[in-house]
Amino acid sequence: MDKRTPNTTHLADVERIDRLRLIRSDNVGPRTFRSLVNHFGSAKRALERLPDLARRGGAARPGRICSEEDARAEFAASKRHGVSLLAPDEVGYPPRLATLDDAPPLLGVRGALDVLMRPMIAIVGSRNASGAGLKFASTLARDLSDAGFVIVSGLARGIDQAAHRASLAGGTVGVLAGGHDKIYPPEHEDLLEAMLENGGAISEMPLGHVPRARDFPRRNRLISGAALGVVVVEAAHRSGSLITARIAAEQGREVFAVPGSPLDPRAAGTNDLIKQGATLTTEAADVINAVEPIMERPAGFGASEPDGEPLDFEPDAGDRARIIDLLGPSPIGLDDLVRMAGTSPTIVRTVLLELELAGRLERHGGGLVSLI
Amino acid sequence: MDKRTPNTTHLADVERIDRLRLIRSDNVGPRTFRSLVNHFGSAKRALERLPDLARRGGAARPGRICSEEDARAEFAASKRHGVSLLAPDEVGYPPRLATLDDAPPLLGVRGALDVLMRPMIAIVGSRNASGAGLKFASTLARDLSDAGFVIVSGLARGIDQAAHRASLAGGTVGVLAGGHDKIYPPEHEDLLEAMLENGGAISEMPLGHVPRARDFPRRNRLISGAALGVVVVEAAHRSGSLITARIAAEQGREVFAVPGSPLDPRAAGTNDLIKQGATLTTEAADVINAVEPIMERPAGFGASEPDGEPLDFEPDAGDRARIIDLLGPSPIGLDDLVRMAGTSPTIVRTVLLELELAGRLERHGGGLVSLI
Repeated sequence: MDKRTPNTTHLADVERIDRLRLIRSDNVGPRTFRSLVNHFGSAKRALERLPDLARRGGAARPGRICSEEDARAEFAASKRHGVSLLAPDEVGYPPRLATLDDAPPLLGVRGALDVLMRPMIAIVGSRNASGAGLKFASTLARDLSDAGFVIVSGLARGIDQAAHRASLAGGTVGVLAGGHDKIYPPEHEDLLEAMLENGGAISEMPLGHVPRARDFPRRNRLISGAALGVVVVEAAHRSGSLITARIAAEQGREVFAVPGSPLDPRAAGTNDLIKQGATLTTEAADVINAVEPIMERPAGFGASEPDGEPLDFEPDAGDRARIIDLLGPSPIGLDDLVRMAGTSPTIVRTVLLELELAGRLERHGGGLVSLI
Repeated sequence: MDKRTPNTTHLADVERIDRLRLIRSDNVGPRTFRSLVNHFGSAKRALERLPDLARRGGAARPGRICSEEDARAEFAASKRHGVSLLAPDEVGYPPRLATLDDAPPLLGVRGALDVLMRPMIAIVGSRNASGAGLKFASTLARDLSDAGFVIVSGLARGIDQAAHRASLAGGTVGVLAGGHDKIYPPEHEDLLEAMLENGGAISEMPLGHVPRARDFPRRNRLISGAALGVVVVEAAHRSGSLITARIAAEQGREVFAVPGSPLDPRAAGTNDLIKQGATLTTEAADVINAVEPIMERPAGFGASEPDGEPLDFEPDAGDRARIIDLLGPSPIGLDDLVRMAGTSPTIVRTVLLELELAGRLERHGGGLVSLI
């Protein structure tokens, strides 16, 4: 799992089942998954410790732990559906995506795995785009595709589908908010099938998961995370594409925006992005010139969460009470907690893990946490 | 003529006539005018020395020196036409304009002199503007006008006239490429008359001068120079408004540009300007926020050409030959000339003056000169 030599390993199926069990268990998100595996050395050992940790964190009732049976059933169903469940260091897992702090520990992948390893540009925008916006998205996607980039987007109506369609030949990747068998919107099922030949589809959700509204912002981090940069083609004020742009900036991805008339409400969001520092984009060269220097840096560069020491001692009740006292609904950073609690980072991280597994902790970006 | 306490003096008519004679004489532009007055202490003494300097510069035939009679005639005709011929330190001469290296030594001014002393924003753009562009220019001009800024522009068809019309009540200034009696385009004569009530018109050209194509770029430096910043509303590639924007940047003025769709050729120039660093502008606040910090700095700050010492010795033939040898059709800087000629800056400046008055020297921006 050394992020600096990505995509060279191949997991044994038994280890893959353990990872699947862990990430499908209650209160385990990608960050918790990573902390647990760092602390306990493997998914298997983390699974063994889950009930105890959650109890110590004060869980009202124990969270559900995904059974081996359920995990094997999902694994088999995924295989039948042509979905590979890949770890961040395996071939087919987009290398840039693997560098995220909250990279999915197992990513459901369909399509041409080699294409998923190539440099990607995300193109996103309004669902109710203008004719000009659709035309521009198509031209840009085709030109970037011709220049060797894979186009990644969200399969939505409007700009997304225009970008996918224009890059079918060169390779395009759809990021799903639900399971691979629950395509949204349903009328894009044929488009997705066409994309699989030279491109792919990815999802962190299990088969059968019907996408809900809250799944889309979560999904959006994968669109930007897989890409070198995100181009926002048309976006009104407060539209979903602006959330993607904000996440992209937080992830250190380049943000590009296509300008429009101040009198066109569909350009209000993109014009704002440019005011805030996004690169004004009128042609593919604007994107290519900005990402070329980045491509020379290895994709693994920048995975930032510190690895924990092995958990060879346990916090006592005093540590736990002191740390819980310091937490509240306002997000606070790990460093501040360590300093204020007057204890070791390992102990603070362990207590946070316990609370998280008990469903009492929320993790925010930038290493901030708050009580729920 | 101390630029740091501008607009407080009033010229005697006899001095005004001398200045008018000097600036209307052959081969004397604003920069040469300034060098001559700096060297000789007054326009009167410079006029006396002109023939000798031009002869030493190698003039094939002596340039015409404006006679006192002609100057008095222009002065009287200007007065009858309501045009004041003002020096850079007099009331009615826009203070920012007075800070330029090539500020007109006498500016023909009509209208409300107090309005010309207020902070100005230039709004320029395509003559064949779109409906959206015209509407945006009007809204922006009105909003900036309401915020207390005088709107300055070039009286052209399209964006210029829309900006003038929308700011008639608050004050708007037209900068002419020809004389005050040769309005271009003629259909805007009524507009100009309406502008004079709360605003004004300025020109550095004599009455009767019909504007030619080459006068417009020269005029454009006065539009940007009088303003804190220039807003380009719509501009195709290689349009005149982009020249104004380039000059504005060279003058240290803020450059603002209004974005548009990449598919709209009338936005190609403004989008390019934003790529090059112009401030993306969708509303008056974008302009106001950027110029407010500048307004607190005195207008006189930044006049950059060094004052020459009095010319109390003359270059010998060896100096002159050496300096002419160093000059060619490629522009070269004064500092480089001084270093390469191994002589004093005063001698180099004097030889350049001689060459200029002989019609053999061209001055470029940034203190660069070349032989014609």
